[in-house]
Amino acid sequence: MPKILSNDLDRFLREVLTAVGVSEDIAELTSSALVAANLRGVDSHGVRLLPVYVEQLQSGDMDAHARGRILSEKQASLLFDAENGIGQVAAAQCCDHAVRLSRAFGLGFVIARNSNHFGAAAYWGARMAKQGQVGIVLCNASRLVAPWQGREPRMGTNPICIAAPGPWLLDMSTTAVAANRIWAAIAANAGSIPQGWALDAAGAPTSSSSEAAKGSLMPLGGQTAGHKGSGLAAAVEILCAVLGGGAMAGEVGSMRRRGHPVGVSQSFLAIDIERFMPLLEFKARLERFVADLKSAAPADGFDAVLTAGEPEWRTEQERLRAGIPIPGEVWQTLVKLSSELGVHEPAASETV
Amino acid sequence: MPKILSNDLDRFLREVLTAVGVSEDIAELTSSALVAANLRGVDSHGVRLLPVYVEQLQSGDMDAHARGRILSEKQASLLFDAENGIGQVAAAQCCDHAVRLSRAFGLGFVIARNSNHFGAAAYWGARMAKQGQVGIVLCNASRLVAPWQGREPRMGTNPICIAAPGPWLLDMSTTAVAANRIWAAIAANAGSIPQGWALDAAGAPTSSSSEAAKGSLMPLGGQTAGHKGSGLAAAVEILCAVLGGGAMAGEVGSMRRRGHPVGVSQSFLAIDIERFMPLLEFKARLERFVADLKSAAPADGFDAVLTAGEPEWRTEQERLRAGIPIPGEVWQTLVKLSSELGVHEPAASETV
Repeated sequence: MPKILSNDLDRFLREVLTAVGVSEDIAELTSSALVAANLRGVDSHGVRLLPVYVEQLQSGDMDAHARGRILSEKQASLLFDAENGIGQVAAAQCCDHAVRLSRAFGLGFVIARNSNHFGAAAYWGARMAKQGQVGIVLCNASRLVAPWQGREPRMGTNPICIAAPGPWLLDMSTTAVAANRIWAAIAANAGSIPQGWALDAAGAPTSSSSEAAKGSLMPLGGQTAGHKGSGLAAAVEILCAVLGGGAMAGEVGSMRRRGHPVGVSQSFLAIDIERFMPLLEFKARLERFVADLKSAAPADGFDAVLTAGEPEWRTEQERLRAGIPIPGEVWQTLVKLSSELGVHEPAASETV
Repeated sequence: MPKILSNDLDRFLREVLTAVGVSEDIAELTSSALVAANLRGVDSHGVRLLPVYVEQLQSGDMDAHARGRILSEKQASLLFDAENGIGQVAAAQCCDHAVRLSRAFGLGFVIARNSNHFGAAAYWGARMAKQGQVGIVLCNASRLVAPWQGREPRMGTNPICIAAPGPWLLDMSTTAVAANRIWAAIAANAGSIPQGWALDAAGAPTSSSSEAAKGSLMPLGGQTAGHKGSGLAAAVEILCAVLGGGAMAGEVGSMRRRGHPVGVSQSFLAIDIERFMPLLEFKARLERFVADLKSAAPADGFDAVLTAGEPEWRTEQERLRAGIPIPGEVWQTLVKLSSELGVHEPAASETV
């Protein structure tokens, strides 16, 4: 599998984006977020999305130039119209507004509507955490998940990210597994997927990838507690789209279908830690808490307890050093883009 | 099973609490929260806790008179010391502070430490929702849950409640099922519990209730995605105990063990809806969102999609009318309390 150093990959992404009319600063922001996801091993939210973004931009379904604007700002609450620009542009501004408001009021809450895919939520949670905040990021998404007891998709994979300054970072979809893992199984013509990943068109659990393709994703909690995952997904919709006045109840588009903007909504909550205790004290307490979790004897079959964010930090260290492995089918789409747009292919530092 | 009308049950609870030295207003608050849980069918958080509260009060492990105090108030953030009083006393004040701050700043965030069991989180989320807020309530709890990949309990069932004005109310533990359901199986000498509820002492899934008793609760997500439930439980600890300066990392006691205060921490976030849109518009949007969820065709084996809070509202209507069924073993503890404290037993309106 070709491996590309993160700097080379970043250079390539920026050149592709500017080649389709995105200005330098927006291209840099967008590329940073995608490459950061690859570095952390979250490849579903990395460079494999570049061809999709390019299609959205070239078709006019996403606006390369829109930077968004503040619709209202009332003390600690701010409503932002992303104006159908690239999601990363809105997200960066919304994070910074949330931190600004949090420093002024102790908390800041920003909702962006009319937005687009912003990469991995973790990138934005971490951006707020670096500023001494607990950063919480929520996002609604295209319909792939049936409400509990239902068989027809009504909600998205609706991620929840909670980030804090220190060794802990949670970023999770409210489904049992990310949609991408099921699509990968379908793309690989793997006939079966593990039980607990998806429901068939009748709303019953299935281990057939083709039945899953006609059905919906299993909410977090599965057959035992899927009402909880479904409830969390609904909470994300309420805190993003319902409260933000954005697209909801079937109005959200899909980044993979042309002729319609996506129109997702995203929420950003910053909690200023210094209102409760000095930041250094908080970090020490968080480290003690994480150490206590990790002191638990591992379950049979595991070497150690890993806490939220830890597997990704390990991957990041490895990939910063050795480069980011790019699967063959993704590499082909990048080569195709580079020839179409007259951009140099990124240098593959290793091919296994 | 004896059924008791909610007013009769409430009268009884208040008399028991005042008989052990709780003042009238605190007794009323505490009773209201417990009876409300029974009315909603959440019997694990209802009157069955009364004998435990009484034991805590009589032993001095919980302070009947403490009302708590504000430690610091900085714009939208407030830190509260519950001073080891009854959890409901702290929770009512913290909700009201959160709403007050939210009206002033658009958001209000209150953390109480040194607190005790406060009943069901839903009661407090709903209290804020009635004031035009999205109300979010989090609470840490005694160690019953192993971190993912671990075999030794390090966290509690750590509930998340999200309430909004309108027909939607989520209140869920971050475990697959509530601890109470497993204890009930053990108490009933049911040898087996469903797979996915618990882990044995080696951290492996078990369907044996006796093995589960020696092990830990399964985090939400089970074998497929238990890292997500475990991550949410950790997020609750961080937003309550780590940030609030409360008991953490093994310092939390248990309401069922004497000689040590419980010392849980609780967080209350209020988001003022009117900063984003008129409340009536929000309610209409929420109703449209819920109607859209409910419009999904039911999965095989179900009659309809039920959304968060809906089963409990149905139970509430029924129990307001017909009374609250009290299981035999709970009834016996209430009769015992009434004779010990010289309080009239509640009238049982029906015995089946």
